[in-house]
Amino acid sequence: MTKILFINPVGTSDFDKPMKEYLEKYKRPDTNIDVISFPKGPRHLEYYSYDALVLPDILKTVKDAERKGYDAVIIGCFYDPGLHEAREISNIIVTAPCESSLYIASLLGDRFSIIVGRKKWIPLMRRNVTNYGLKDRLVSFKSIELGVYDLHKNENETKRRLINVAKEAVGEGAEVLILGCTVFFGFFKDLQEIVGVPVIDPVLAALKQAEWLVEVKKLVGWTHSKVLSYEPPPEKELREWGLML
Amino acid sequence: MTKILFINPVGTSDFDKPMKEYLEKYKRPDTNIDVISFPKGPRHLEYYSYDALVLPDILKTVKDAERKGYDAVIIGCFYDPGLHEAREISNIIVTAPCESSLYIASLLGDRFSIIVGRKKWIPLMRRNVTNYGLKDRLVSFKSIELGVYDLHKNENETKRRLINVAKEAVGEGAEVLILGCTVFFGFFKDLQEIVGVPVIDPVLAALKQAEWLVEVKKLVGWTHSKVLSYEPPPEKELREWGLML
Amino acid sequence: MTKILFINPVGTSDFDKPMKEYLEKYKRPDTNIDVISFPKGPRHLEYYSYDALVLPDILKTVKDAERKGYDAVIIGCFYDPGLHEAREISNIIVTAPCESSLYIASLLGDRFSIIVGRKKWIPLMRRNVTNYGLKDRLVSFKSIELGVYDLHKNENETKRRLINVAKEAVGEGAEVLILGCTVFFGFFKDLQEIVGVPVIDPVLAALKQAEWLVEVKKLVGWTHSKVLSYEPPPEKELREWGLML
Amino acid sequence: MTKILFINPVGTSDFDKPMKEYLEKYKRPDTNIDVISFPKGPRHLEYYSYDALVLPDILKTVKDAERKGYDAVIIGCFYDPGLHEAREISNIIVTAPCESSLYIASLLGDRFSIIVGRKKWIPLMRRNVTNYGLKDRLVSFKSIELGVYDLHKNENETKRRLINVAKEAVGEGAEVLILGCTVFFGFFKDLQEIVGVPVIDPVLAALKQAEWLVEVKKLVGWTHSKVLSYEPPPEKELREWGLML
Amino acid sequence: MTKILFINPVGTSDFDKPMKEYLEKYKRPDTNIDVISFPKGPRHLEYYSYDALVLPDILKTVKDAERKGYDAVIIGCFYDPGLHEAREISNIIVTAPCESSLYIASLLGDRFSIIVGRKKWIPLMRRNVTNYGLKDRLVSFKSIELGVYDLHKNENETKRRLINVAKEAVGEGAEVLILGCTVFFGFFKDLQEIVGVPVIDPVLAALKQAEWLVEVKKLVGWTHSKVLSYEPPPEKELREWGLML
Amino acid sequence: MTKILFINPVGTSDFDKPMKEYLEKYKRPDTNIDVISFPKGPRHLEYYSYDALVLPDILKTVKDAERKGYDAVIIGCFYDPGLHEAREISNIIVTAPCESSLYIASLLGDRFSIIVGRKKWIPLMRRNVTNYGLKDRLVSFKSIELGVYDLHKNENETKRRLINVAKEAVGEGAEVLILGCTVFFGFFKDLQEIVGVPVIDPVLAALKQAEWLVEVKKLVGWTHSKVLSYEPPPEKELREWGLML
Repeated sequence: MTKILFINPVGTSDFDKPMKEYLEKYKRPDTNIDVISFPKGPRHLEYYSYDALVLPDILKTVKDAERKGYDAVIIGCFYDPGLHEAREISNIIVTAPCESSLYIASLLGDRFSIIVGRKKWIPLMRRNVTNYGLKDRLVSFKSIELGVYDLHKNENETKRRLINVAKEAVGEGAEVLILGCTVFFGFFKDLQEIVGVPVIDPVLAALKQAEWLVEVKKLVGWTHSKVLSYEPPPEKELREWGLML
Repeated sequence: MTKILFINPVGTSDFDKPMKEYLEKYKRPDTNIDVISFPKGPRHLEYYSYDALVLPDILKTVKDAERKGYDAVIIGCFYDPGLHEAREISNIIVTAPCESSLYIASLLGDRFSIIVGRKKWIPLMRRNVTNYGLKDRLVSFKSIELGVYDLHKNENETKRRLINVAKEAVGEGAEVLILGCTVFFGFFKDLQEIVGVPVIDPVLAALKQAEWLVEVKKLVGWTHSKVLSYEPPPEKELREWGLML
Repeated sequence: MTKILFINPVGTSDFDKPMKEYLEKYKRPDTNIDVISFPKGPRHLEYYSYDALVLPDILKTVKDAERKGYDAVIIGCFYDPGLHEAREISNIIVTAPCESSLYIASLLGDRFSIIVGRKKWIPLMRRNVTNYGLKDRLVSFKSIELGVYDLHKNENETKRRLINVAKEAVGEGAEVLILGCTVFFGFFKDLQEIVGVPVIDPVLAALKQAEWLVEVKKLVGWTHSKVLSYEPPPEKELREWGLML
Repeated sequence: MTKILFINPVGTSDFDKPMKEYLEKYKRPDTNIDVISFPKGPRHLEYYSYDALVLPDILKTVKDAERKGYDAVIIGCFYDPGLHEAREISNIIVTAPCESSLYIASLLGDRFSIIVGRKKWIPLMRRNVTNYGLKDRLVSFKSIELGVYDLHKNENETKRRLINVAKEAVGEGAEVLILGCTVFFGFFKDLQEIVGVPVIDPVLAALKQAEWLVEVKKLVGWTHSKVLSYEPPPEKELREWGLML
Repeated sequence: MTKILFINPVGTSDFDKPMKEYLEKYKRPDTNIDVISFPKGPRHLEYYSYDALVLPDILKTVKDAERKGYDAVIIGCFYDPGLHEAREISNIIVTAPCESSLYIASLLGDRFSIIVGRKKWIPLMRRNVTNYGLKDRLVSFKSIELGVYDLHKNENETKRRLINVAKEAVGEGAEVLILGCTVFFGFFKDLQEIVGVPVIDPVLAALKQAEWLVEVKKLVGWTHSKVLSYEPPPEKELREWGLML
Repeated sequence: MTKILFINPVGTSDFDKPMKEYLEKYKRPDTNIDVISFPKGPRHLEYYSYDALVLPDILKTVKDAERKGYDAVIIGCFYDPGLHEAREISNIIVTAPCESSLYIASLLGDRFSIIVGRKKWIPLMRRNVTNYGLKDRLVSFKSIELGVYDLHKNENETKRRLINVAKEAVGEGAEVLILGCTVFFGFFKDLQEIVGVPVIDPVLAALKQAEWLVEVKKLVGWTHSKVLSYEPPPEKELREWGLML
């Protein structure tokens, strides 16, 4: 059995239950998924500084998940906050929506576009695409100009806007589309039928990649490298500075 | 059950049995693997023109595998010959060693080096790394100066050379190593223990990715996009020009 | 005298005569041009897999042309199929339309756009532009949405669409235009007069470059390097695998 | 008068006094400098996850400094932790050592090298160089293989190693050198005399840039843009989530 | 006191007085500014060849300024003619509008657009942006299609066009705008108020950077590197070839 | 007949006769070559500022050559001084050694190295390689540490050093070598025989390209674009400012 912890890195548990139900529809039979959020902190992460606020909680949760025997952790925000840091301090698999989405999109077509809620999100995401090494495969960012908390308010309007920008992106040369926010969950299926290209739901991309990397680790023996980028700090310091018990 | 066909795209069946045995050690329980090679043609693919010679056979085999109900095909050469073309003409999953290795390596560490048999191989492989969009994550190519048919002649010597260049690459900043030839199969395990970083065996990377993409296709519904790059030719033409029965 | 063979790499001789007549208008006086096509195979190369199908025939034809004393071969498709492979196996000059066009365009202006028949062609051509190292000089691809066999059906309509996209491209900053298909032959002259920038006809670019490289080879002694990329396979293997008599 | 707060973003005040004395030697006459550190937290930031731990404290300190009337804040770690986030939440000037050093180095010569303590630091710093847009001006990273707390243990040994790698870097084409850690303070002067090229001390680069941006803001009216990247969150949320009083 | 010479590198003194008055509004109290132009030569530099014509005069003026005790010279054309050459032959600070503007813009926001008078100017400016290493931070060039001598003819019309393209650029993702001609002086203030993002006036950017680099040189001891790019020619040759008395 | 003017852009006629004799060995039978230098000015162009000094003379000479009926002008310095400016002001073909060498090298192999006399030359040449769009095909610069006037002092020593760095470059992956100075004339032949890869002599590259572009202009009608980069200034201004009679 594969134990996966999905972190909703926000100070509200509102999304925990729907997210768990959603992930369970797409998981492997032998995967066990838990979803967790934080007791306090920002209730959304649209601003870059909010990411900063939740980073310590993300890392402590990852370290705790390792202790509790989880095989993998998913950091549930498309900015991928703390992805590299979490791999540095732990020995379990860590995935995140943006990285996962970019890689599977690259396997499914030549170039992709990323659909975001608000233009504000784009500069940080563009930086991430560059850092993952895939900026030459990015066609464009398309914004539907809706904040995180508006995406599910009027789902028909959200859908209508998604279809519009999706068609634009395909016209510009996108062969695959990526939904650039975990809160877009639920929209990909209809959209991909209407537009006729694969539409990546980032939480599913992160889930499927997490399951896969756990399997690969067990069967083949490959896991995150521990030299340079992910060279771990001494446990003594982690304990002293509150990152582990 | 997932049915996968591994194509040894050469005119000799010498590698078929050992390759099948090797893959079966790492496959999922419910995966069924067949290995096939061609009745005639080059017995190795070190020269770029040899790739050209086997391309029609690769494509016909892919199209035939689709007809026979395979879920995925693996093109077993690190030059990834015909990868894009095979995705264009078929509706099944197609993977290849170089692409698979680059993507999993990118998930396991920041930058990687590729170990090749001969320097001759490098220019075409560098072009592929660029085309897959990942050249900024490549540290270096390292050559052990042994041809394909020499890799298993004196395995101790091969191993000795691999260890040398692997250590050099890690010293240059590689966090992950990739073995740049399918015929390197069997060497990754010891090497990764000695050098202390993940060492990607490209046939296993291609196998695990193929299994995964088949699963994702079944569970989530994502598969190779069919617009632009992989827009398929008319069946009528495929038949007329001998690519399908 | 310079002997040049122009390969129409398709399974129809329909274009041979008009192509020969066209090339003869622009050749040097001491150039002798032959045009050849294949007895069977795809009648157009719009799909990437069709390129794969004709590659062995292209290479055999190149090798045969070398034996027959040709100084140069032109591979007559804007995807430049087999260009590197042909240089690997032979000692004669080999040119192709895309490479030739990009280089002469770069000498005539700062940046260029490429006009194609269908959007489908773009991803492979963009990859080639990148591989030739010139993507920073590319402004855009412009598509007139006509297939190869439609280009000469209604030449006025073709011309009308060419003028439209040409003007758009110049407005975007293109100082030179390239016609991205060999079947565009005949259109460049009027177009360049109307739009006021050089319009590169790719078959003429390939012809003039072939003549030039033959001259340079004879007078100066430079020809395709034979290390690494174009290091030739052993003749014994070429013979055994049917690439030469 | 210009009021600047230098944040030593670590949980020790050991460096506060020497840093203040050092900065005061190079400040403008009308600049007032305070140096602050945190009551708890990591005592060094060599690991990427330690950056994550101190980010909330950095941001709160920046926001508090704004309230207290500081004109500028310097984030005193060469990883530049929280630089973008601090600009997002505040209206004062924020500078950081890596960004400041890269820009002044670019004005003083064509290309530069960065000298680090340990190789571990390089991947994150390389990513920052790329994100600041200046990777084409980077010659190399050179490591002297000494941790932060070893730099001042045996200053002669540190100096000896610095001279060695500095000369190597100049031999590779570096016209300017950058010391890639704030704890290198004090070494630049001798080194630049010995090696004969400008050697950038990153805390001084950050100090001088902070003073300059404050002056430019006052005299010309330019300051960090408040659209997109640095678009600020609503004050209500900042208060609710503890980023401001 | 800091002595700065601003070179209007044109054969007319028409702009000298207004430029001096303009600069004096923004200079530091202890800065002394002189403005100089040439007795003959092109009266504007819109064409690349005009730059070539004035280069010798620029260099002689720089060398003369050094002799006369100026601390810094500003080359007053957004093509930055002779910037590198002037640094090569002299030991004083040299700045120029394009370089100065790009660097301060990069500190104020993530990406910027450059507004030009005529499209003709763009290719050379794009090359400069690339050479300064910052092309990844450039969103777009926007042209208002007015020549240098038209910018102040009808200032309302100029302003109207500036506002239009400025808004377009911000819509495309520009967080900072740069006015790409020294003759745009005077327009930045209103524009930045209307559009809501920093608008860089290039002569002020060059002035403030010059003052700053002089201060840094005096206080910290950093100045243009004298190896490789700016390695100076022998004085004997400079004298013989008329670059110095 | 094709009339070509080769400009030795220096204030000495010492190289005129040997250069003319050299070029005549490699020209087409119907080409007429003249070589010209300047009555005064720098006697070599190793420093970037010397380029600036000779630019007006280069441009006047080009404009005069046009008036006298030359079909093409070659600017004989590997820094390619004034190449773009000369194309802007004239309607004849202009070529230069660096641009010519890079393009033919790209046709002869995958990647190339450039051999220079002194390291000082490299930064400007690297910038040119980038500007011509070909930096991804550059392996390395190799310096033999000899000034222009030393290259022919002890030709055996020059040759010995050339062989050393040439072999190094090939070992690094160069498939073609370029001699990065016009004064290297005469060395390419032996070197290419010894090292076994094409060695480009830049004056011959520029000569053959000039002849070719003249032919192409006459036979096909393509010449330097006259929009944007090479949009010509008004003749009235050229006359007034002394660029034409």
